[in-house]
Amino acid sequence: MDDRARVRVGVLGANGKVGKAICDAVNAAADLELVATVDQGDAIDSFVNSGTEVVVDFTHPDVVMDNLKFLVENGIHAVVGTTGFDDARLATVTEWLDASPGTGVLIAPNFAIGAVLLMRFSEQAARFFDSVEVIELHHPNKADAPSGTAYRTAGLIAEARAKAGVGKSPDATTTELEGARGADVDGVRVHSIRLAGLVAHQEVLLGTQGETLTIRHDSMDRTSFAPGVLLGVREISTRPGLTVGLDPLLDL
Amino acid sequence: MDDRARVRVGVLGANGKVGKAICDAVNAAADLELVATVDQGDAIDSFVNSGTEVVVDFTHPDVVMDNLKFLVENGIHAVVGTTGFDDARLATVTEWLDASPGTGVLIAPNFAIGAVLLMRFSEQAARFFDSVEVIELHHPNKADAPSGTAYRTAGLIAEARAKAGVGKSPDATTTELEGARGADVDGVRVHSIRLAGLVAHQEVLLGTQGETLTIRHDSMDRTSFAPGVLLGVREISTRPGLTVGLDPLLDL
Amino acid sequence: MDDRARVRVGVLGANGKVGKAICDAVNAAADLELVATVDQGDAIDSFVNSGTEVVVDFTHPDVVMDNLKFLVENGIHAVVGTTGFDDARLATVTEWLDASPGTGVLIAPNFAIGAVLLMRFSEQAARFFDSVEVIELHHPNKADAPSGTAYRTAGLIAEARAKAGVGKSPDATTTELEGARGADVDGVRVHSIRLAGLVAHQEVLLGTQGETLTIRHDSMDRTSFAPGVLLGVREISTRPGLTVGLDPLLDL
Amino acid sequence: MDDRARVRVGVLGANGKVGKAICDAVNAAADLELVATVDQGDAIDSFVNSGTEVVVDFTHPDVVMDNLKFLVENGIHAVVGTTGFDDARLATVTEWLDASPGTGVLIAPNFAIGAVLLMRFSEQAARFFDSVEVIELHHPNKADAPSGTAYRTAGLIAEARAKAGVGKSPDATTTELEGARGADVDGVRVHSIRLAGLVAHQEVLLGTQGETLTIRHDSMDRTSFAPGVLLGVREISTRPGLTVGLDPLLDL
Repeated sequence: MDDRARVRVGVLGANGKVGKAICDAVNAAADLELVATVDQGDAIDSFVNSGTEVVVDFTHPDVVMDNLKFLVENGIHAVVGTTGFDDARLATVTEWLDASPGTGVLIAPNFAIGAVLLMRFSEQAARFFDSVEVIELHHPNKADAPSGTAYRTAGLIAEARAKAGVGKSPDATTTELEGARGADVDGVRVHSIRLAGLVAHQEVLLGTQGETLTIRHDSMDRTSFAPGVLLGVREISTRPGLTVGLDPLLDL
Repeated sequence: MDDRARVRVGVLGANGKVGKAICDAVNAAADLELVATVDQGDAIDSFVNSGTEVVVDFTHPDVVMDNLKFLVENGIHAVVGTTGFDDARLATVTEWLDASPGTGVLIAPNFAIGAVLLMRFSEQAARFFDSVEVIELHHPNKADAPSGTAYRTAGLIAEARAKAGVGKSPDATTTELEGARGADVDGVRVHSIRLAGLVAHQEVLLGTQGETLTIRHDSMDRTSFAPGVLLGVREISTRPGLTVGLDPLLDL
Repeated sequence: MDDRARVRVGVLGANGKVGKAICDAVNAAADLELVATVDQGDAIDSFVNSGTEVVVDFTHPDVVMDNLKFLVENGIHAVVGTTGFDDARLATVTEWLDASPGTGVLIAPNFAIGAVLLMRFSEQAARFFDSVEVIELHHPNKADAPSGTAYRTAGLIAEARAKAGVGKSPDATTTELEGARGADVDGVRVHSIRLAGLVAHQEVLLGTQGETLTIRHDSMDRTSFAPGVLLGVREISTRPGLTVGLDPLLDL
Repeated sequence: MDDRARVRVGVLGANGKVGKAICDAVNAAADLELVATVDQGDAIDSFVNSGTEVVVDFTHPDVVMDNLKFLVENGIHAVVGTTGFDDARLATVTEWLDASPGTGVLIAPNFAIGAVLLMRFSEQAARFFDSVEVIELHHPNKADAPSGTAYRTAGLIAEARAKAGVGKSPDATTTELEGARGADVDGVRVHSIRLAGLVAHQEVLLGTQGETLTIRHDSMDRTSFAPGVLLGVREISTRPGLTVGLDPLLDL
C-alpha cells in the first residue's frame, strides 16, 4: 500500500488502558499510521506539528471539550468515546464545527459494532412480531439492573412498535411470584442475569405464530470497541459536521 | 422379535389426547404390544381378560385411585401420569402394594426425560459454581410465573447448595428497576419469559471464574412425554412397590 | 371496524394443509374477510363473483400459472407461495401484469418473516466482522444438507463480503478430521445438525475482536408462514406489478 | 478461621502464567495458605522446610516426573495439571505411591469443572435420546478440528450408547455438500466452528420425540482451571494413591 494513502492518526489519553488498546489497533491496521500520542501533561499541539488527520479521544468529561475545541479549530477530525455529552455540549460542538466546515466529529456512547447492530436490528424487527423481550447477562459486580444498553434497546423497541401501531406483547400471567416477569421498560419486559464467569451479553427475543427470532450480542473482553473505533477513523473525514452514534457509519 | 417377548400393554383414558398419543407410541414400539384400551364407560376388567401386564393411566384425579386399586389387586403394573397425588394417596397406594408383592407402580409428575435430566444435572452441578440462575420461557397463554418446573428446579438447586455449604450467588446490584433481577426462589433468581411462538423451555445457568455451564431443555410439542412413558412401561415390572418420579429409572 | 374496510380475501388450494391454515389465519384477522375458497374441481370464477380483492395461492407448479393468468386478467391481486418459478415464468407474469396496470402479484419462496429478517440482517452485518459461519439444525428426516435456506443465506453473506472487499474468515486449522469444519458455500462455512425433536432452525454467527453477534431463527411448527402471508395480503394492493420475495414489504 | 486449620500449599512453576494465576487463587482462598513457591533454579526442598502439605504442579513433561518422585517420597500430596502422562508414567507414579501410603496424587488433563461436568452429563444422558451431536466453537487460531475435548466427549457418548444398546442417531441425508454433516467420531457427528471473538466453547445436543436437551460449556478466559485446582487441593489429602481426572472428586 502506498504510504501516503495511510490515514495519519493521533490518540488522546494514549496511556490509559483503552488508549493503549487503540494505539495497538491502529498500529496493526495496514491503512492507518499512528503519528502522535498525547496524555496528561503532553502538549496537544503535537497533533498539528505531526500532520495528524484524525484524533481518537478516550479521555475524561472534564477535558474532552477543551480537546475538541482545539481539534476542530485546527481542522483535525475527531472520534470520541469519552462520556458526558448532553444536548448543551453537543450544541457547542456543532457551533465550533459550523465555523470549521469540512471537519468531522463522531461522538458515540458505544463502539462495539455488535451492540450497535443488535439495537438497530431489534428496532427494525420489533413491529413484525407479537412478542418481544430483552435478556441482558453480566458479571455479578455490575451495580445497575438493567444495563444501560438493555434500557436503551427496550426503549428503541417500544418506540418502533408504537410508531407501527403494534400493541403490547400478549401475557396471560395471573399468578406471579414478584419479579418473575422482569422489569417493565416502556412496556417491554427486561430480565437481568448476574453470573460469575460472564462478561457482557444481551439477547433480544422476538416471537410470533410458530417462529421466533433471537439476536444476541456477546462481549467477551474490553477490547471489543476497537473495530468500531477504527471504522470511525476511516470514515469520519468523509462526514463533515457532527455525527452522534456509530449507526450512520454502518450504512444499513 | 418373538411375539411372546413383547410386553402386553393397556391404556386407561385411551380416547383423550394424551391417551391417543400413548397408544400410537406403544403401537410404534417393536417390543411392546397394545392389548387393551379403556376409557369412560368401558369395563376395566378387560385388562384382566386380555392378560395385560402394564397399564398406563393418564386419566383424572377423581378416578385414578379406583383404577390403581383394581390394577394392584390384579397384579397388573401401572405407569401413572395423572396428577393429584399427595402424601395420603401415596401412602394408600403403598398399602395396596404391600398386599400385592411383585407388583410395581410408577407415579411421575413429569415424563419428559429431558426435563427430569435437567433437574438432576442442575442439582448435581449447583455446588461447584459461585452463581446459578434459572430462566424459563413459555408461550404467552401461561397463567403462572415462574412455571412449576422452574420453581421445583430452583428449590432443588437451593437445597443442594445449602447442603454443600455454598453461599448465595454474588450480586452487587445497588440500583434495580423493579423486577429486573427476577423472582427469588429460596435464594435462586428465576426469570420468566413469555413469547409467542415458544412452547415450553427452561435454562439453568451456572457460572464460576472464567467459565459457565448452561443446561437447557426445549419441549417442542406435547408428545414429549411419550419416551418417558415407554421407559416406565419397560422398567416397572422389575421394580415392585411404589416408585415416585422418573429419576430412579434413569440409573444416574 | 367498518365492514366495508375489510380486505376481501380468497384462498386457492383451500383444502390442503397449508390452505386450511391460511383460511384460519384470515378468519382470525379482524381486518380481513374470507369471501371465497377454491380447490381442485371448483370453479375459479367464484373469485370474480364474490368480489375477491386478493387471492392467496399455495397450490402446485402445474396449475399456478393458469391461476395467475386468470387472476391478473381479472384485476385480482395475488400472494403466491407455490414453488417452481424460474426466470421464464417470472417474465411471463410480468407481461400479464403490464397488461393489467394496478394489479399486484407477490411471489415469495419463504413467508416466515423471521427467516427473511435473519437473511437480511446477516447480509447487512456480514462486512463488519472478521468471521462468519452458519449453523442450520433440522429434524432427522431432512434429505438435503445444508438446507436451501442455509445455502441461500451463506451465498448472500459471501456476496456482501465480496462487495465490501472483506476477505475470508480466518482459519488456522492444519489438522482436520474430515468434515469437522463443515461445508464450504462460497467461502462461508455451513454446518448441518440433524436431531430428533427439532423442527427447522438456523443460526448465523459473526465474530470480531472481543465480540460476537448471533442471529437465530427457530421455526417451531408449519404455521410460521401465516403472519408473512397476511402481511402480503395487506400490502399487495399498494404494490402494482411483480414483487419477488417478502423483503420489499418489510421496508427495512 | 483458626490458622492451623488452613491447608499449607506450595506451587511448582510459580512464575509461569498459569502458576501465577494459581498463586493468586490460593492467596484469595480463606482456607488455604501459600507457604512456598518454586520455579526453575529454585530448590525444591523448600517444600519440605516450609511444611507444605499439597503442591500444585503446572510445569513441563520433562521435569514433572522428577518433581513427583520428590514430593511422593516426602509424603507431600500433589495436584498435577502438567501434560504428557501415558500409561507407563502413570504406572511409575503408582509404584512410588505404593511405597508412600497416605500420600495422594491427582493428575488431570482438564481442571475446568464445567468441561468435566459437561462430559459426565453427556455420557449419562446419551442413552435416553434418539439423536446426539456435538458442536465445539473456538477462536480461529486453533490448529486442530475437532478439539481434543470434543473428540473425547464424542467418544464417551458413543461408548455409553453402545453399552446401552442404543443405535446410531437417525439421519435421512441423501444429498450432502461435502462436510455439511460434520466429522464422524465413533458414529457421533462433531462440528467445529472457528470464529474471531470466541475463546473455547462446547455444546452437546440431545434430541428425542418432541424435546431436546442441550448442555453447553463456555470458557471465557484462561483462568477457568483455578476452581478445579482448588477443589483438588482441598480433597487430595483424603484420597491416598493415584487419582486420574477430576471426576472422582466431584462425587456425582
